Parts: sequence; C-alpha cells; structure tokens
Amino acid sequence: MGGFGDVPYVRLMHPIVKLLPGRHKRLKAGHPWIFSNEVADAAAKLIEPGSAVTIMGDNGEIYGTALFNSHSLLAGRLVDLERDIELDTEFFRNRIQRALALRDRLFDAPFYRLVHAEADRLPGLIIDRYGDSVVLQFNTAGMDMHGAAIIEAVEAVVAAKTVVLRNDAPARVQEGLPLDVRTIRGTAEAGSVAVQENGAIFNVSLAQGQKTGWFFDQRDNRAFVASLARGARVMDFYTYGGGFGIQAALAGAVQVDLVDRSTAALENAALSAAANGVSERCVFLKEDAFSAMERSSGEGARYDVVISDPPAFVKSKKDLNRGSRAYRKMTRLASRLVAPGGILFVASCSHNVAPALFGDLVKKGLADAGRTGRILRAAGAGADHPVHPGLPETAYLKTLTLQLD
Amino acid sequence: MGGFGDVPYVRLMHPIVKLLPGRHKRLKAGHPWIFSNEVADAAAKLIEPGSAVTIMGDNGEIYGTALFNSHSLLAGRLVDLERDIELDTEFFRNRIQRALALRDRLFDAPFYRLVHAEADRLPGLIIDRYGDSVVLQFNTAGMDMHGAAIIEAVEAVVAAKTVVLRNDAPARVQEGLPLDVRTIRGTAEAGSVAVQENGAIFNVSLAQGQKTGWFFDQRDNRAFVASLARGARVMDFYTYGGGFGIQAALAGAVQVDLVDRSTAALENAALSAAANGVSERCVFLKEDAFSAMERSSGEGARYDVVISDPPAFVKSKKDLNRGSRAYRKMTRLASRLVAPGGILFVASCSHNVAPALFGDLVKKGLADAGRTGRILRAAGAGADHPVHPGLPETAYLKTLTLQLD
Repeated sequence: MGGFGDVPYVRLMHPIVKLLPGRHKRLKAGHPWIFSNEVADAAAKLIEPGSAVTIMGDNGEIYGTALFNSHSLLAGRLVDLERDIELDTEFFRNRIQRALALRDRLFDAPFYRLVHAEADRLPGLIIDRYGDSVVLQFNTAGMDMHGAAIIEAVEAVVAAKTVVLRNDAPARVQEGLPLDVRTIRGTAEAGSVAVQENGAIFNVSLAQGQKTGWFFDQRDNRAFVASLARGARVMDFYTYGGGFGIQAALAGAVQVDLVDRSTAALENAALSAAANGVSERCVFLKEDAFSAMERSSGEGARYDVVISDPPAFVKSKKDLNRGSRAYRKMTRLASRLVAPGGILFVASCSHNVAPALFGDLVKKGLADAGRTGRILRAAGAGADHPVHPGLPETAYLKTLTLQLD
Repeated sequence: MGGFGDVPYVRLMHPIVKLLPGRHKRLKAGHPWIFSNEVADAAAKLIEPGSAVTIMGDNGEIYGTALFNSHSLLAGRLVDLERDIELDTEFFRNRIQRALALRDRLFDAPFYRLVHAEADRLPGLIIDRYGDSVVLQFNTAGMDMHGAAIIEAVEAVVAAKTVVLRNDAPARVQEGLPLDVRTIRGTAEAGSVAVQENGAIFNVSLAQGQKTGWFFDQRDNRAFVASLARGARVMDFYTYGGGFGIQAALAGAVQVDLVDRSTAALENAALSAAANGVSERCVFLKEDAFSAMERSSGEGARYDVVISDPPAFVKSKKDLNRGSRAYRKMTRLASRLVAPGGILFVASCSHNVAPALFGDLVKKGLADAGRTGRILRAAGAGADHPVHPGLPETAYLKTLTLQLD
C-alpha cells in the first residue's frame, strides 16, 4: 500500500450550525427546513451564503447536511440525513441520476421536470428536460454557489446539447441573488423545441416563455380533461401554450375556443394547433379571461367543457383575500358557461391557497351561479413534480374537474 | 280537450320544514345537509322518516326538496334545489340515467360505481354495477322508503339481470333501519361475477364480500402502482380480492406476495390470479398484516413495491387517536420493507381521518423508520366515486404513492 496510498484520506468537515433548544423536533419528524430564528449560533451569520453545513441540535444530536443562507428567513435546507456530505459534481451526478431513473419509470419520452427541488433532495434546484435540452433554475444561494458542479453533472447525465439558465424566479431576490437568463450551451435562444405530451406536440420557447417554457405539471390533468372532450364544444381560458385546448381537440372535440391576453402565447398555440392538425377546429381569442367569460355568458354561449387554469391570483400572503375572491368569481363566471351535464375544470397554482380553501371557493362560486354538480377528480401536479413528505405546503397545484347538472 | 283531459293536474305539495334563524346560510353556500337541531318546527317530528319535504329558511326562502328523517341527527338531505320534486320511478330513472351517462363517458366496460349517493344527487343510495348485475345499498330512510321505485328504475336503465340488496351497512342502524341482504332478482347468491378492471379480471362474490363485493374506488391507484411494478418484487398487504397485487403481476412484476388474514379472501384472490395467468408469480399468505410486516422486516426482506391498503382503522371519532397511531405504525413497518428507490403505497379509507392528518401520520411513520422519499401521487377514489362540492368530508379515501431513498 505504498506511494500515494500512504496519504491519509481527509474527510471534509462542514461548519456546525447549532439549533436553539427544542428546535430540532420538527427535523426529527421529517421536516427539512431550518428557519433563521431557530439558529443558536451568532457566528452562523459569518458562513458564506450557500455553504454546506452540519445541523446539530441543542442536545448534540446531528440532523444532517444542509445548505445554509443566514440572509434568508429560510436559512437551512437539509440535503441529507448524514453529516459532511460533499456537494461536488459526483454528488449532483448521483442525485440527478436517481431523479432520471424515476422519470424513466414514469414516462416514455424525455419531456418532464427532471429535478423538483426539495422532493428530489436538491433544495432550490429545478431542472426541466425537453429532449436533449435542459432548462435550469437555481432558486437558492446553495444551488447558485454549486452551479458549476450542477451544470457539469446534468450535462453528463442526460447528454444535454442545449443548457439554458432561467435564473429569473422571484425566489432569487429573497436569497440575495441577481436575476440572470442565458444559454450556457447550444442555441436555444435562437429557436424553440417540440415538446411531446400525451400524444400531442407543442412548440415551446425555452428562453422566452413563462417559467422554463412549458408547464409540465398539468400533464395528467390535460389527459383527463381531454378524455371527456370527445364531440364536445370546449372553452380553454388562460390557454397559454394551448396545452388543454389542443389535447381536447386531438381527443375529438368538435370546436375549441382558446383565450389568452398574450399575442405571443396565442401565436405559439396556433403553431402547435397546426402541428397537431387541429387548426380548423381551434379559434384563438386575444382577450382577458374574465372579460371573455362575462361576454360569452352575456351572449348565451354554452360549452360542454370549460377549462380555467389561471396564473397565481395569490402571489403573496397579502393577496390572499383579493385572490380568493378572484377564484370564487372565476368559478361563478366559468360555471355559467357550462352546458347541463358538461365539465368544468378549475385550477389554482397559488401556494398560499390551501387545497381546502380552494375547494371552499369553488363550492361558493358554484352556489353563486346557482349550479350544482360533482367533483370527478381532485388532483395536483404530475409525478415528475413530487412532494417532500415533510413539506405538504409545496404541493402548490390544486385542480378540480367537475361535472355540472 | 274533453273527458279525462278535464281533470286538473294536481301538483304534489310536500310538507314544509322550516329552519331556525340563520340556519339556511350553509345551504345557500352549497351544502346539502340539514341537522336536526337546525329545524324550527316541532311538528317535523311527526313526518314519516324518509319522506320528501320542502326546506324553508326563517326568511321564507325555499331551499329545495329534501329527504327527511327526524330520528337522525342528519335529518335532511337535499335532492334538488326546486321544491316539490316528486320522488317516483321517473325521478329515479332520470337521475340514474344521468349517472350512467357519466360512467359511459369515463369507462369502456360496465364495471363501476353507478350511483355514489349525494354526489349523484341521490343521498344515501349506492349502486355498484357488475356487468348485468347490480348491487344496491339504501343507507338512509329516504332511499329505503323509495326502494321499490329505485329498483324499478335501475332495472329499466341498465337492464339488470341480477339485483342484490346489500342493506347491511352500519349507517342503516343510525337511520333506524333493519339490516337485510337478499337477491331481489337473478341468482347472485349462488355464484360470482367476473369484474374487468384495468385489463385484469377478478372473481367477485356479490352477496358475501365486503361492502358490495369489490372496491372500485382504487381502480386508478391500482393502475398507477402497477405501472411502476415492471420487474419488481411486490408485497401487497390487506390484499382482499388481489386487486393491487394481481394487476402488478400482470404489469410485469416478477414476484408478488399477497397477504390477508381471511382464507376466503385469499382463495378468491388465488382464483383471480389463475384467471389472469399470473399464479406462478403470486404467493398467498394468510397472516395479520402487522405481524407479516414485522416478520418480513426481521427476516431482512426487501421489496421494490410495498402496498398497504387496510380497512378503516378509525371507524368512529372515538377511535381517532388509536387509529392514527395505527396508520403511523403501518407506515413505519411497511417503509422498512421498501428497497432503496422502491415504491410505498399507503391508503386510508377512514372518513374521520382528514387528508392533512393522514399525510402527517405518513410523514412521521417514515421519520420513525429513518426513511426519506417523495410523494409521487396523492389521490382519492376514482371518478365513479365523485364528491359533492359541499361535502369535501365525504372524500373518504386518501392514498399516497411514494418513492423512498
């Protein structure tokens, strides 16, 4: 065992962050976050934001390795129950490889959320995969600091030809990070990719669209609504990329009205309709959704399937009352457009609106409109957006599919 | 217009039940129940249990037609927002026809819950359909009183050859109704039917099994778990009819252990395994599930997919603490059997356990076992078990499918 073998293996030791008395209990029950007011050690403020640390309870017990940012109220995010885990390229390759293995079990084609932050034990990291293109978001100082290793790892795991950084999420501001959108590798800024979903094809711009370009989270919900759309007249509010409406048309809807107030979104959706050969059954309407609901209702329009999948009405807690009223109003207006026996699909992606509250608002909106019916399906995001068992509040997407009388 | 045409049409008038001041508000917001302590009228006690009544607010406003049973704490259940709806064969034929039209949209084969009580605007009525056999449950005095019309209607709508009454649900006792199981038409008591579900076939006894013989509510969950079972070693606790395990075997599981403490259930599941040609990959174990979990764990057994779909641990509110501990323990024991990267499916059909509580118990059970992972899917019953928007608490089934690290 001579030569270099004699050099002893030096185990990396992370700085220790000690918690105040009793503040380890939540971690022990499976929660992965440490808040800044739970930290005992004043010296923790000196730790460079984004560094890996060891979390220790007041009792001396070790709770694992966390990424730490004392400048954030949400100061620590556990990445592992073991201490001193080294966050190098090998670590990220391993975690991303596991995330990929799960998606390979779930899907036939490489279009999905590859890494969903805490639930994939990579807090603050989002990776969406579009074939051989990937779009990354580093939403915490921890992921931002380890960005180079993450990019190296993801390129190795999925052989990505195009890598786009979409570091423009509001979460970065809270972490003290700058906003930044750029193509690290490849030519995504010049063009667009074709997403395959439920047998349909969609035209998606990686660098310019909302979020990473496509909302993979509604995949199963789009499939369910489409399965009810054969022979139907369909209205798709907030259509964005046309996901719901075009899949309904492909499933046999006889007429689909797609509403959005963004010209760019509608042009893109029209390209996708053409790519799926359903243009002649699709009508694209540039209009505010609430205005379109009131106008259509006034005209006596009725649809067999009405979809309303809006952007978040509650972006922060202070919007809760106003945004809640908006969900109730949306339900009232949209339900009036549903023909007897028809389908209403409503969604909320506001993480401040709990599932029970959303259900209550929908119930009241239906009652306001004098409509009765039944919930056929209450569902969140697809399985490529898993939820950390200790963080049920990160299950931001709530959807209800109802049949109305 | 002479002759009998001269006889004026006499509109049926139901007795009026008046509510105490303010007690109409919940109805106005979409809730369909009236509790006995909300009724103003002492004379309401004289109304024959099960009769249709008109519900009137203290303000004189009409809230619709309800089935009424003053002997029950849950005294009134709305069937319509209009007053004086006549509950005759025509009424039931119409409601059952609508329920059938929905199931026809949802399913390719006639095996499903055809009527799911309040959600299908038939409070207290359950009808499960097994091809040309139907099993009925009258769980309220209202449905019991109108039983003859219901049977006539369902026979007409689905051309049923066999009609079984499974009036043995505990709910009947609270309504002051006797227990009664019998075959009204056909020969179900002599044999069994073949249920088709997700491409598999199951042997079901209509008159002797739990509930109506088959749990249709887990259909989508069985399909999802099976989709993750290719090449897997699978453990199916509380297998009952073999629904999860046999579908996993059909989807390519290499080995499936099916545990139940009922010999009759296992014999039946073994018949179904044979019917699907998967007997050689199935092992049937007569054992208490908790004992089997502890034994297997002690033997170091590990599975790629572990399913635990127990009967209700919380049958009434007084069982809440004890039953909650049982769900937590079940999760701890079952999760220990899951191989790294494997799948854990856990369910609760206790309507007293809210979804958030179930999630919390599962989180703690995982932490007790030192396991981490991610929730891939949080789902309730299938769409043939719809939920009344005003009664979210009737969404009794909670299931979580997790991948563990």
